[in-house]
Amino acid sequence: RFGYFGKDQLEQVKLLVCNIDGCLTDGQVYLSAGGEELVSWNIRDTTGISTIQEQGVEVCLISSRDCSIHKLLAKKIGCQLEQNAANKLEVLELWKSKKKLSWEQVAYIGNDESDVECLKKAGVSGVPHDASSDAVKAAGYTCRNSAGRGAVREFADHILLLGEQARAKSQQKKTLKSVCS
Amino acid sequence: RFGYFGKDQLEQVKLLVCNIDGCLTDGQVYLSAGGEELVSWNIRDTTGISTIQEQGVEVCLISSRDCSIHKLLAKKIGCQLEQNAANKLEVLELWKSKKKLSWEQVAYIGNDESDVECLKKAGVSGVPHDASSDAVKAAGYTCRNSAGRGAVREFADHILLLGEQARAKSQQKKTLKSVCS
Amino acid sequence: RFGYFGKDQLEQVKLLVCNIDGCLTDGQVYLSAGGEELVSWNIRDTTGISTIQEQGVEVCLISSRDCSIHKLLAKKIGCQLEQNAANKLEVLELWKSKKKLSWEQVAYIGNDESDVECLKKAGVSGVPHDASSDAVKAAGYTCRNSAGRGAVREFADHILLLGEQARAKSQQKKTLKSVCS
Amino acid sequence: RFGYFGKDQLEQVKLLVCNIDGCLTDGQVYLSAGGEELVSWNIRDTTGISTIQEQGVEVCLISSRDCSIHKLLAKKIGCQLEQNAANKLEVLELWKSKKKLSWEQVAYIGNDESDVECLKKAGVSGVPHDASSDAVKAAGYTCRNSAGRGAVREFADHILLLGEQARAKSQQKKTLKSVCS
Repeated sequence: RFGYFGKDQLEQVKLLVCNIDGCLTDGQVYLSAGGEELVSWNIRDTTGISTIQEQGVEVCLISSRDCSIHKLLAKKIGCQLEQNAANKLEVLELWKSKKKLSWEQVAYIGNDESDVECLKKAGVSGVPHDASSDAVKAAGYTCRNSAGRGAVREFADHILLLGEQARAKSQQKKTLKSVCS
Repeated sequence: RFGYFGKDQLEQVKLLVCNIDGCLTDGQVYLSAGGEELVSWNIRDTTGISTIQEQGVEVCLISSRDCSIHKLLAKKIGCQLEQNAANKLEVLELWKSKKKLSWEQVAYIGNDESDVECLKKAGVSGVPHDASSDAVKAAGYTCRNSAGRGAVREFADHILLLGEQARAKSQQKKTLKSVCS
Repeated sequence: RFGYFGKDQLEQVKLLVCNIDGCLTDGQVYLSAGGEELVSWNIRDTTGISTIQEQGVEVCLISSRDCSIHKLLAKKIGCQLEQNAANKLEVLELWKSKKKLSWEQVAYIGNDESDVECLKKAGVSGVPHDASSDAVKAAGYTCRNSAGRGAVREFADHILLLGEQARAKSQQKKTLKSVCS
Repeated sequence: RFGYFGKDQLEQVKLLVCNIDGCLTDGQVYLSAGGEELVSWNIRDTTGISTIQEQGVEVCLISSRDCSIHKLLAKKIGCQLEQNAANKLEVLELWKSKKKLSWEQVAYIGNDESDVECLKKAGVSGVPHDASSDAVKAAGYTCRNSAGRGAVREFADHILLLGEQARAKSQQKKTLKSVCS
């Protein structure tokens, strides 16, 4: 019976990978006549990222575009960034193996076709409310909030809640085990 | 009976403290490739702040971030500003004691977890329609308008209405007292 | 009977006065860390202004603020502009008398308390869908579209429709008169 | 019977013409005090344009305005651009004849009165959800998404779906023909 209790312990998420355009941002790109681009994000989402980082979950950003604003943003919120990701799943697998994680320890939030494979592989997967239908079908959790308007915050809160539930169940089993033995 | 009438006089709000990101703004931060940030607010909200200032209510701004645009905004609308507020309740208590006010004379509008304690302490408390659920539970008044889209104006109008009601009741009691005596 | 037909002729609107913040714009003001402001409007609305100008209706802009972007915007769309309007009704009356118009020939679109008197005086008055309740009560026409998102276009179309109806009725009466005489 | 099967072959769309303001963008124009303009679009829409281009459909942009940002945008997404188009149908007919296409091979997405004739002529026509009523009436397909928020992506997906259906039908007929002969 020891093995049973030991093996069933729920895994905690250790890594959250977040697509930038259309997840952390609303996908809008502003362009000035002088050729300068702007993108926006919401403080609610970056606050959610800070909170989950403080709880020991690493947050990495991914983008299929090459955009210098993404670099500034990643630096601001203390996240590793991979740009020009033609194949996002390859990047995700590289991060997973480098950090020696199981898929159960990886969470992914994406919104479009290029995120579908990552959403299928990750242990915990989510999409903003306004994601493409392909992405919604591939994900386990559909946020009530839209991209760039709280979806990442909501998904981070969801991960923390799952972590609490896992800890609570693990505690119950330990208690049960000590009572039974 | 004198004491009864005298003590029951309703307090007028003398200070409105307003969280910036996600209350006075919609929480969006725009970043250019050159590294310059932008935030936006609505004229409706700043008009509401002007109106309540003209009615003798001081308006102070609070933020947990350090953002130079907040300073420009505070100067524009003639408000005291406290940035980098790690503990917002401490700032609120300092303002309250410096200005020699009771909690009944303090109104607070916030939108997130870091505002919960302030929302519980303030005599009049409000949240934008799109505030976090923690903040909504802690607040007395939930605005129909969202952050950065009229919530602060609506809350300011609400405070002015409460003030009018307080004055009207106080007048009724004075009349009643003079009739009874 | 001649006098009866003559006097009853419906007046065509000759002047449309449009409040800027919260009517032609959505009221959002963007501020950069460098202190530069931005405001936005919708091509749909400025197209509506061009159309009504081509139909012989003059369009003037009014604002209670002093904002250099308003000057650039007014120049772009070929409109006279009055800024810093502490009392908007005074400005409206001045324009009306200078252009020798009756109130029936003046249309006004506004959205806030400072527009209420103008909305009451103008022959044709309108508010965006998201105007303040005071302004909605004072106006004859409430747009389905919101400020900065087509409200001015909708109001301009409404004025042109009223003009067509007036012309049609006037034509009917002329026909009727010639038949009767 | 050969002729019957041959003539009925459904045409594939070879050219998609897209109005810029109010289709690819939401029609908002941002202006700074320094006189610099900004417009925005959504990554979802430009991703849709890339996808349809990769499927062999040429994408051209059209605008009745002269705006230097449109030029930058057209260059970024590899599209031919015609600005200052006083008569959009003339431009559309010129492109159609230069590229030796039939109307069935031309798709058009527009949103306002100036697009109505093009919407009527094109073999496949669409409007964003928030288009003017004139444009909606003239178009075959009304997007669920609004301008600048996924309408162009949705219309591009719609065209690709029509293409797949046409190929499937054409395949069925070829099979049927070989079975019958």
